[in-house]
Amino acid sequence: MTAPSPLLHFEDFHPGQTFVFGHYAVSREEIVEFAGEFDPQPHHLDDDAGKRSLLGGLAASGWHVCAMAMRMVVDGLIVKAANRGGVGADECRWMKPVRPGDILRVEVEVLETRASTSRSDIGFVHVACRIFNQREQVALLAMTPILARRRA
Amino acid sequence: MTAPSPLLHFEDFHPGQTFVFGHYAVSREEIVEFAGEFDPQPHHLDDDAGKRSLLGGLAASGWHVCAMAMRMVVDGLIVKAANRGGVGADECRWMKPVRPGDILRVEVEVLETRASTSRSDIGFVHVACRIFNQREQVALLAMTPILARRRA
Repeated sequence: MTAPSPLLHFEDFHPGQTFVFGHYAVSREEIVEFAGEFDPQPHHLDDDAGKRSLLGGLAASGWHVCAMAMRMVVDGLIVKAANRGGVGADECRWMKPVRPGDILRVEVEVLETRASTSRSDIGFVHVACRIFNQREQVALLAMTPILARRRA
Repeated sequence: MTAPSPLLHFEDFHPGQTFVFGHYAVSREEIVEFAGEFDPQPHHLDDDAGKRSLLGGLAASGWHVCAMAMRMVVDGLIVKAANRGGVGADECRWMKPVRPGDILRVEVEVLETRASTSRSDIGFVHVACRIFNQREQVALLAMTPILARRRA
């Protein structure tokens, strides 16, 4: 008899479950570099422009924050799961500016699980992913379905 | 009398309006570099792992595709608009894998405009942002509100 896979499968996720992990130190260099490549708006590149914007100071591109979150989710959860990829996000909200010196972490809350009707080997795990900063503020909220393999 | 700003303001957006722009050439190096930093899952890093995955071959991280889209939107639309930033995305779907050699472009369709009830100087322009590849497939769909300044 083969031992069951230690990886988290669809059947291992349950509504209400919460996973807490991650430590992401945000640097000015990274904010400016990402913005220069993907989101070259002045408030992501320059302190004074940031101060004059709704952000109230230099802050990371929202898509950069999503990417930082993804890195923490890969390292802290996906490596432990029989993950089959993602399909996108149902909702994504940049709640607070992410600034140089911020330290981010993740809370993933399972909201609902649903077996795929078209593929018997996978299921959808709907999660709320909250990225907190060191001031205990939610900087990013992403509601997103994750595809997880089902146990044979 | 001062001439009105040539920038697109809230009042210049109307449901049904479509903006078409952008040309983004996707390279293998960029896919692997972004994935190495933000989404180090094997199917974004390695051809063989990509082939074994649901993606059917090496493909860019979905968040990378969002970032590529943002770059095109900044260069093709935001530079022409009295933009006040974004708040996130209402929905985001990675419809087709984005692969090395793909050429992407954008279509932004205005769905609805709504003045802010809390701030008289801004309004929300709700758009559907579709990223097409050179095979005329929609690779990314993002439904997102944009904050635009109102004319004085």
